[in-house]
Amino acid sequence: MADRGLLIVISGFAGSGKGTVVKQILADRPDRCSLSTSVTTRLPRPGEEEGVSYFFRTKEEFERMIRDDELIEYARYVSNYYGTPKAWVEQKMKEGVDVILEIEIQGAMNIKKMYPDAVLIFLMPPGADELKKRLVGRGTEDAATVRARLARACEEAEGIEKYDYLVVNDEVETCAGKIEMIADAERLKTGRQDQLIRRMRQGLEKFRA
Amino acid sequence: MADRGLLIVISGFAGSGKGTVVKQILADRPDRCSLSTSVTTRLPRPGEEEGVSYFFRTKEEFERMIRDDELIEYARYVSNYYGTPKAWVEQKMKEGVDVILEIEIQGAMNIKKMYPDAVLIFLMPPGADELKKRLVGRGTEDAATVRARLARACEEAEGIEKYDYLVVNDEVETCAGKIEMIADAERLKTGRQDQLIRRMRQGLEKFRA
Repeated sequence: MADRGLLIVISGFAGSGKGTVVKQILADRPDRCSLSTSVTTRLPRPGEEEGVSYFFRTKEEFERMIRDDELIEYARYVSNYYGTPKAWVEQKMKEGVDVILEIEIQGAMNIKKMYPDAVLIFLMPPGADELKKRLVGRGTEDAATVRARLARACEEAEGIEKYDYLVVNDEVETCAGKIEMIADAERLKTGRQDQLIRRMRQGLEKFRA
Repeated sequence: MADRGLLIVISGFAGSGKGTVVKQILADRPDRCSLSTSVTTRLPRPGEEEGVSYFFRTKEEFERMIRDDELIEYARYVSNYYGTPKAWVEQKMKEGVDVILEIEIQGAMNIKKMYPDAVLIFLMPPGADELKKRLVGRGTEDAATVRARLARACEEAEGIEKYDYLVVNDEVETCAGKIEMIADAERLKTGRQDQLIRRMRQGLEKFRA
């Protein structure tokens, strides 16, 4: 039986490069890591595929999922729901696959309550000025949006200590490598190796004086 | 200023290969890792050097060190004292060097009380039969000693969950590599990166709305 996979929560400021780093991890470990696909009530944008980008559901169906405890966590942004489907995540972990959730701090804290052994990782750019540079450099946001994102980063920074690990994203491959290293080290935690401990104790029993 | 070094406690059954693995780690990272030298009241054996094998002290001097709180932990075996000198360990950690202590479970628990952020690692052979084979294979112990060590392993196995990590020593280089990986991952813990967090927060302050 495979050891249970990890639940890895990755958060970080807008501009921390979360998305790119997660893609790199998935490319590095296609069989050992999976990104959780969220359920949403928003309409698919052109090119978005059911079950790949999101699971698209109606508001009624989403609210039924909430009632029936089928979501690990969910949040409502503007007029749409976003959530993490429990069955899929549990199944992957059971298969020994590490599941990555890319969510914000509020969701991360909810996950930690339900899954105390989840691994919470916060991603940071090398510095505050670098963060601004990245946000401006994207060229997709106007000045007001950049200011709002930076202000939001100030607030989010208050919560960093609630995460288990803090990783600086200076270079995508290096950063992904550090997160992979964290996952490998976490698998060596005593609390995650019940089977191995039980086997050793059973083996030692015959030598008991 | 260098980040503070880790205090890494390594325990394991007699026959787990602790000593060899620790030597490998010190060889891999001569500048980043140091093995704590114990203080003892036993007499030096031929070839043992002051400050290398042990710090050799009289019983009176050792008891003064206990009184003056100069030891992190100590124990008495037969009629001799063994202890870990605090000043040396603190100095190394301050320099950013990881300090390895190779001690037994009782000492490890005392360390954890005094240094809650110490990293406790338990080493295990791949299985109980392998453990017996190694102990017999040494050829240095008679059958009664081997039996006593195996019986002691049964008792020690009760305490494995008190350690943070459990590493199987199937091959020395691999096992040393895993411990080095644990150390690198531990350095990314949020609680060990106060300076980085403070610097980011200060940098972000100017963007506050």
